[in-house]
Amino acid sequence: MTDETATFRPEARAPRGFADKRAPVLRAERAILEAVSAVYERYGFEPLDTGAFEYADALGKFLPDSDRPNEGVFALQDDDEQWMALRYDLTAPLARFAAENWNGLPKPFRRYAFGPVWRNEKPGPGRFRQFIQCDADTVGSARPEADAEIVAMAAEGLEAAGLPRGQAVLKINNRKLLNGLLQSAGVETVGQKLAVLRAVDKLDRLGPDGVRLLLGEGRKDESGDFTKGAGLGAKAIESVIAFTQAGLGGAERSVVLNRLADVIGGSAEGDEGLEELARIDAALTGMGVGVDRAAFDPAVVRGLEYYTGAVFEAELLLETLDDKGQPMRFGSIGGGGRYDDLVARFTGERTPATGFSFGVSRLVAALAAAGRAPAADVRGPVVVIAFSQDRMADYFAIAGELRAAGIAAEVYLGSSGMKAQMKYADRRNAPAAIIVGDDELAAGSVTIKDLDLGRAGAAGVEDNAAWRAERPGQQTIPRGEMIAAVKRIVGAN
Amino acid sequence: MTDETATFRPEARAPRGFADKRAPVLRAERAILEAVSAVYERYGFEPLDTGAFEYADALGKFLPDSDRPNEGVFALQDDDEQWMALRYDLTAPLARFAAENWNGLPKPFRRYAFGPVWRNEKPGPGRFRQFIQCDADTVGSARPEADAEIVAMAAEGLEAAGLPRGQAVLKINNRKLLNGLLQSAGVETVGQKLAVLRAVDKLDRLGPDGVRLLLGEGRKDESGDFTKGAGLGAKAIESVIAFTQAGLGGAERSVVLNRLADVIGGSAEGDEGLEELARIDAALTGMGVGVDRAAFDPAVVRGLEYYTGAVFEAELLLETLDDKGQPMRFGSIGGGGRYDDLVARFTGERTPATGFSFGVSRLVAALAAAGRAPAADVRGPVVVIAFSQDRMADYFAIAGELRAAGIAAEVYLGSSGMKAQMKYADRRNAPAAIIVGDDELAAGSVTIKDLDLGRAGAAGVEDNAAWRAERPGQQTIPRGEMIAAVKRIVGAN
Repeated sequence: MTDETATFRPEARAPRGFADKRAPVLRAERAILEAVSAVYERYGFEPLDTGAFEYADALGKFLPDSDRPNEGVFALQDDDEQWMALRYDLTAPLARFAAENWNGLPKPFRRYAFGPVWRNEKPGPGRFRQFIQCDADTVGSARPEADAEIVAMAAEGLEAAGLPRGQAVLKINNRKLLNGLLQSAGVETVGQKLAVLRAVDKLDRLGPDGVRLLLGEGRKDESGDFTKGAGLGAKAIESVIAFTQAGLGGAERSVVLNRLADVIGGSAEGDEGLEELARIDAALTGMGVGVDRAAFDPAVVRGLEYYTGAVFEAELLLETLDDKGQPMRFGSIGGGGRYDDLVARFTGERTPATGFSFGVSRLVAALAAAGRAPAADVRGPVVVIAFSQDRMADYFAIAGELRAAGIAAEVYLGSSGMKAQMKYADRRNAPAAIIVGDDELAAGSVTIKDLDLGRAGAAGVEDNAAWRAERPGQQTIPRGEMIAAVKRIVGAN
Repeated sequence: MTDETATFRPEARAPRGFADKRAPVLRAERAILEAVSAVYERYGFEPLDTGAFEYADALGKFLPDSDRPNEGVFALQDDDEQWMALRYDLTAPLARFAAENWNGLPKPFRRYAFGPVWRNEKPGPGRFRQFIQCDADTVGSARPEADAEIVAMAAEGLEAAGLPRGQAVLKINNRKLLNGLLQSAGVETVGQKLAVLRAVDKLDRLGPDGVRLLLGEGRKDESGDFTKGAGLGAKAIESVIAFTQAGLGGAERSVVLNRLADVIGGSAEGDEGLEELARIDAALTGMGVGVDRAAFDPAVVRGLEYYTGAVFEAELLLETLDDKGQPMRFGSIGGGGRYDDLVARFTGERTPATGFSFGVSRLVAALAAAGRAPAADVRGPVVVIAFSQDRMADYFAIAGELRAAGIAAEVYLGSSGMKAQMKYADRRNAPAAIIVGDDELAAGSVTIKDLDLGRAGAAGVEDNAAWRAERPGQQTIPRGEMIAAVKRIVGAN
């Protein structure tokens, strides 16, 4: 039929950077979120859900006054002229919530949250403008043990999500260590500090010698482009390099602490960082979390601003292959750290906070890299074949009986014949089809077709008679034995 | 500490009409969605999730060209100048998805979905601009049995969500019945048809006599305002009234069908509606769904446009009390019907579709009205009291041991003393506190405080010594017996 009233026909397409998700992906994501939620609740974290919008000033974004207010975020003006923006992470809404409700909250306040966040960025292959994050944060505890708890919980959460122990590690650093080191070396300017952090962040890619250049005068890359360096002297450069190497070789946390003490030497902020790491180590050890799950790694940078103390990065240890079949490290699957200034934006009171965040799609990809890819095909329902309009009530009775036994089932509800119905069942990845023609109804029996057994043969079947002649994986049994027979098939698949 | 760098301090507040949800509400909502999802999957419906945004033309909204494009929806212009809007329901995205992917989908295509939808409306008490909907739809089946399946599944879903059977009923009507009736009565204009639907929709509030006036010349209400009527003649008015009464008395579906056949009499569209209802009845009966769960009620209107055949409304049957303590009907907790024109907007091909939708918050409210309110207080974790920095690793070992046994537990991580820690545990609704002071550590024992038993007494405790003197619900036992003792307490609560 043609709809004669429609004149304008919009093209059916999703906005750029927004994905439609079907069963295999959704089931993998839900399984992750359920497993991680159970772990987080066992650590005493309560769920919290905030709305999609925050006021733009609460997000800390530049207040828009131009024609393009939504740089990086999706922003719009409410009817009272206030600018709102879709949240771009789950931390800013937590800071707003904590500031708004601080007096009524138990302190420290532990919460976890998951849900979509939005980034108004250029979409591309694998780069989406909406994705699901899962965060856990403790607000109101300055204790390093709160960091340790987050780390232990993150490690346990990743394992519960399906990453085998030993295939991922939480790497821990403390921003105060490098600050202390640079202080001792006489580096004071913010610009120089950021240049050092940026250089250290390239250690994986450039190796120590490349980083040495970036810490000193600068480095020319293969294309001839020159990057200006941080301008450190030779001694400071070697201190920074020694610092970044202190975590090498999967060393025990106490060993790394000793190495660091040698390098950092005596600055007040460096000592504070060492003391915090020592307390994190003790708490982790108390919880039975060894260096295979949580290691100290001074080479971890984790963003340039924002964090004020401990930083964490969850890294997949597996070697995976890139698009060209070359071995590559999968790298980060989540991270976090201590941010003590976020709530202060609202209240003026510094409020210590620490947390861990991961992207759910990224974790699905990590699970796939670890050989735990979600099944591409989701098992469909048992399909009851519909031969005759007069018998629909009988087909529905059979479907109802199967569902009551906990078996997903449906009656075919299209208008096509036998062959198309079998193709439909195949496309649905149905474990079995139930065939109840006049013969079966007269005899009080059902014919059950095991579709996994019969899938190869089904394509060539032209009609009911041919079907019955062939019968791969097919059995006709008394109706009273149907549930048991279907259960055997579903259980075996 | 005061943050001296902050100058502008935004007020910490959520945008108007957006709610923060904490554990009790979230757990109730999640339990509903999990239970309903399990039912829907048992009916062979697969999950689908689309992005928050759709192009405005795909939503079917008036294309904005003024300064206020977001009438009713939250809309913004993408950087390629296309207008996008946050979805205001889950049906429009499904229509877009189905049109976009039709060739690759199994047909009929059954999907369920849940997630936030956004309405840019004036917020008020209990009126939010973001709320969670849960929908199930079958696209591509014109069979009335597809409607029956949706109805049976909706009834089972509501029961699985916690509504006791018999406290809610799915009411079914068919738009074609009234159309046929009006055709026979010579009513042809769309305006008159809509006026009749509007009048019938007021039956609950005005009763048959009030509706008679609205079907005829019009009605003056108590404030003196006059509503113009549909202008039907006396005979047509009585036919419509008889039609709306055909479902009274909880009559069996077959009885209602007979009554309707008498009233509708012979119009082609009316007969088509009757035939569809007869097939819905047969399928429901086949699935064992009686009139206590799914009834025919010709008084159901369910929106004025959009639906093209069967319409459903889930109604809570309980009498509940309004704000003034007056008995009131809770009314609708969800609805749906057949809409055969939505996909055609994109493709020009009429594609039959039918579905059911409910609001999750509304269902939480319905459960509360049915005496199944979610617990206001969520059970917190067992709290391990922290006395001394030197012993933190011991406290964490205890918390780890409890978690490994499946018991939610945490170490107190604030900086306050014993009394504040007990208050914290109380505020968290903790079942128990674990106290491990120097005595216990030396003796290899733990002290466990049952907080439900001791809650009354705890408020008056000033310090550790007073605490130990009082000991309501308190026991000191060997460390090896801790898990068993805590399990007894948690299990008993």
